[in-house]
Amino acid sequence: MASKNVFIAVIGAGGVGKCFLSQLETLSKRLSTNPSFPKISLVLVSRSTKTLYSPKYEALAFENLATSLASASTALSLAEVIEYLSAAPAKVILVDNTSSQDVADQYPQVLSKGISIVTPNKKAFSGSYKLWQDIFSSAASSGAKVYHESSVGAGLPTISTLKELVDTGDEVTRIEGVFSGTMSFLFNSFAPTEGSGGKWSAEVKKAKELGYTEPDPRDDLNGLDVARKLTILARLAGLPVESPTSFPVQSLIPKELESVASGDEFLQRLPEFDAQMEETKVAAEKEGKVVRFVGSIDMGKKQVKVGLEKFDRSHPIAALKGSDNIISFYTKRYGSNPLIIQGAGAGGDVTAMGVTGDLIKVLERS
Amino acid sequence: MASKNVFIAVIGAGGVGKCFLSQLETLSKRLSTNPSFPKISLVLVSRSTKTLYSPKYEALAFENLATSLASASTALSLAEVIEYLSAAPAKVILVDNTSSQDVADQYPQVLSKGISIVTPNKKAFSGSYKLWQDIFSSAASSGAKVYHESSVGAGLPTISTLKELVDTGDEVTRIEGVFSGTMSFLFNSFAPTEGSGGKWSAEVKKAKELGYTEPDPRDDLNGLDVARKLTILARLAGLPVESPTSFPVQSLIPKELESVASGDEFLQRLPEFDAQMEETKVAAEKEGKVVRFVGSIDMGKKQVKVGLEKFDRSHPIAALKGSDNIISFYTKRYGSNPLIIQGAGAGGDVTAMGVTGDLIKVLERS
Repeated sequence: MASKNVFIAVIGAGGVGKCFLSQLETLSKRLSTNPSFPKISLVLVSRSTKTLYSPKYEALAFENLATSLASASTALSLAEVIEYLSAAPAKVILVDNTSSQDVADQYPQVLSKGISIVTPNKKAFSGSYKLWQDIFSSAASSGAKVYHESSVGAGLPTISTLKELVDTGDEVTRIEGVFSGTMSFLFNSFAPTEGSGGKWSAEVKKAKELGYTEPDPRDDLNGLDVARKLTILARLAGLPVESPTSFPVQSLIPKELESVASGDEFLQRLPEFDAQMEETKVAAEKEGKVVRFVGSIDMGKKQVKVGLEKFDRSHPIAALKGSDNIISFYTKRYGSNPLIIQGAGAGGDVTAMGVTGDLIKVLERS
Repeated sequence: MASKNVFIAVIGAGGVGKCFLSQLETLSKRLSTNPSFPKISLVLVSRSTKTLYSPKYEALAFENLATSLASASTALSLAEVIEYLSAAPAKVILVDNTSSQDVADQYPQVLSKGISIVTPNKKAFSGSYKLWQDIFSSAASSGAKVYHESSVGAGLPTISTLKELVDTGDEVTRIEGVFSGTMSFLFNSFAPTEGSGGKWSAEVKKAKELGYTEPDPRDDLNGLDVARKLTILARLAGLPVESPTSFPVQSLIPKELESVASGDEFLQRLPEFDAQMEETKVAAEKEGKVVRFVGSIDMGKKQVKVGLEKFDRSHPIAALKGSDNIISFYTKRYGSNPLIIQGAGAGGDVTAMGVTGDLIKVLERS
């Protein structure tokens, strides 16, 4: 395979994108001396308003890539990027490091042209069930690959493990876990297994100050991010979930604050509602338990849900630390004790790691 | 790829081998309708004294396979098996479900002929460092693949995760865990996080009665099984460990009982030494800790060791249940909280799952 060439195009140069480009540079050097891998050439890097690319499909230099991109004078539209990649004289892998629904919507078309995709973008796999079907049927027809490990649990081997359980014929009965670094941090501080924790609104404020929430914390507290991840896992496990809003998702945004104008106003008024969360916490404590924000999939009942649940203090979900994620797979083979995967489920470097790992998988299969 | 054919040969039809053949039958049916996989044909099944194979490389029927193998009248030697596979008119994957050093020693030769290998056999990867080097250099030259996920932690995604950390450029600083289902069961019962546990000799006896130990429990208690797994992980992480006896391994066999004739005599005399283990347990309890049998690799100090360590009751290693394994990867990217994988690390079905998963990986790359 030594003589083959594979072109790589990267859309998105934000937090994950930057980390990925740095990992790609290292990988590219390492693979250049490995004869069992194709030669890889980065031919396009794009962010919202700038596109750096080689019209003749020559490899872009990694040196000063950020500066070159910043000073790029062109901006290809998504359609133009796809046209450019479709005309490439070799295999192409598109790395989508955006979280854009517009890009996700083009996946079926991209895959149908034989262009493989690796991405942490949740939108493609947690949107409508029709988009999901279109993506995988396009890939199957053209032979292009699509990998999205980092769409759940960042670089943690979540999707690859679930796929392997299913592909080797195990029967998944239940999936349960903490799928949001923000929610993990909030509840590990608000309702710790030892000590009493702070007030809910104070913990949310602290999480925001530490950069653990979205600019508007309501984007974490509405539970949609977790619902998207559950949608992906449920579909991989075999449930044809229609959308991330087609099952019960508990929002932690008080009704009265849903429509306040800004995240700042939300944070300012949140203390008015501390009593509600305190009540939930105390109710759990009375049973010797702690409250956690979890997602679960019951395959037998075909039920997916996202919201608050109580756990014994010694339960692995209760004992989680920092902003870690935890995912438990209950299966027929694994019996009463689940297969558990745990660790950082957010952050540029670990998310990019999942993307780079997927890229290696596609290259090995090229 | 639809027209390609891949031949599969399986050596070993014991506990793991039987489960694997059952999983292979299911997989074979499923893949036959998937055009992106090659057609797979089982052409040889072998156990110590019997070989069932198709001289003309036609697919053996899965129906009544065990009976057909039991009534096979031939027994090919290992050399004959390799000769037969080398002459095959298509790609071949050898599935070694034995734990035989003799088979392991032939891996470099097998791989050099372009035959891929998937196996749970620890011996090949934890023997001499020269054998390790020969295996991977033979594979690199011929392009044959070699996968051995189940050689550590059975079907848990241990090796694939470590490889991905390394391949994507993370820096592994420390690996630590409980790598033996037997040791896990023994210490979770002997020194539970709640309650006081039984006497050491009684727990060993119980574990043997439940089938959690080797026929002679000393084969678990000598720590060599754990040392072999640590050798494999250390090498994958980049330490050229010479052999599983080249670093400190604590044996839990009292010196006086090392040479008693049988496992039964060992069990009979073990109560004489309960005071030693009790002392260790009590010493840990005085610090509010519990004792566990762990393996660890310190990449900075280039140190590998296996033996008893003390852990806080809330530590994930202390909180392990049943006969579960746990593996913690501390890396630069994951920071202070490690990436943790946990679950059953022994048993026919979960071990076979790792083998089947590896087989799928090789097929995807064929």
